[in-house]
Amino acid sequence: MTSSPRTPGVQRVCFTMQLRPDRIEDYLRDHADVWPEMLAALTEAGWSNYSLFLRRSDGMVVGYLETEDFARAQSSLARREVNARWQSSMAEYFESGRPDAALDELEEYFHLA
Amino acid sequence: MTSSPRTPGVQRVCFTMQLRPDRIEDYLRDHADVWPEMLAALTEAGWSNYSLFLRRSDGMVVGYLETEDFARAQSSLARREVNARWQSSMAEYFESGRPDAALDELEEYFHLA
Repeated sequence: MTSSPRTPGVQRVCFTMQLRPDRIEDYLRDHADVWPEMLAALTEAGWSNYSLFLRRSDGMVVGYLETEDFARAQSSLARREVNARWQSSMAEYFESGRPDAALDELEEYFHLA
Repeated sequence: MTSSPRTPGVQRVCFTMQLRPDRIEDYLRDHADVWPEMLAALTEAGWSNYSLFLRRSDGMVVGYLETEDFARAQSSLARREVNARWQSSMAEYFESGRPDAALDELEEYFHLA
């Protein structure tokens, strides 16, 4: 048992994004059927145990994933053509436009294995 | 590879809580040294891979954990005396008082193993 926020070899990442409240249902519908090539790109780029959660009251999205190096996982994904297409197709649902350009990364201060 | 939000046997849980912005540093200081008996109670109650993350801009806390049954994990923890002491000691840092009474549980709509 450990409460250390640093486990060598795995980085636990949490971020938030803000949906447009009037587009929540359209956004969820698209996520029931994410393109298989986008799922493959995420896996190849090192995004694992990746979940997205919704706070319905205000459209806040929380992402959680595990990876060896999040900066590398982000840049690896950003180089893939399917990611550009996916992010552009999501842009209309977010306050900020393309969601990958506006991830607000949070700080892990506690972990219990 | 799966994008199903339902994996039998494990429930991924995400919740938010709201810190008082003027108490963030005090709260973090307490979390650098969580009581060992509180860590043991969490583990015994089935809270695993449990992380807490902070959004510093507004003091929002995001919790993520994996468990077989979150309702059971919550009630099992709630029965333990050390939890009552811990939650009471945390209450002054939160807008709502005792944080375990005001978890806002989010909805998982996407998962990639």
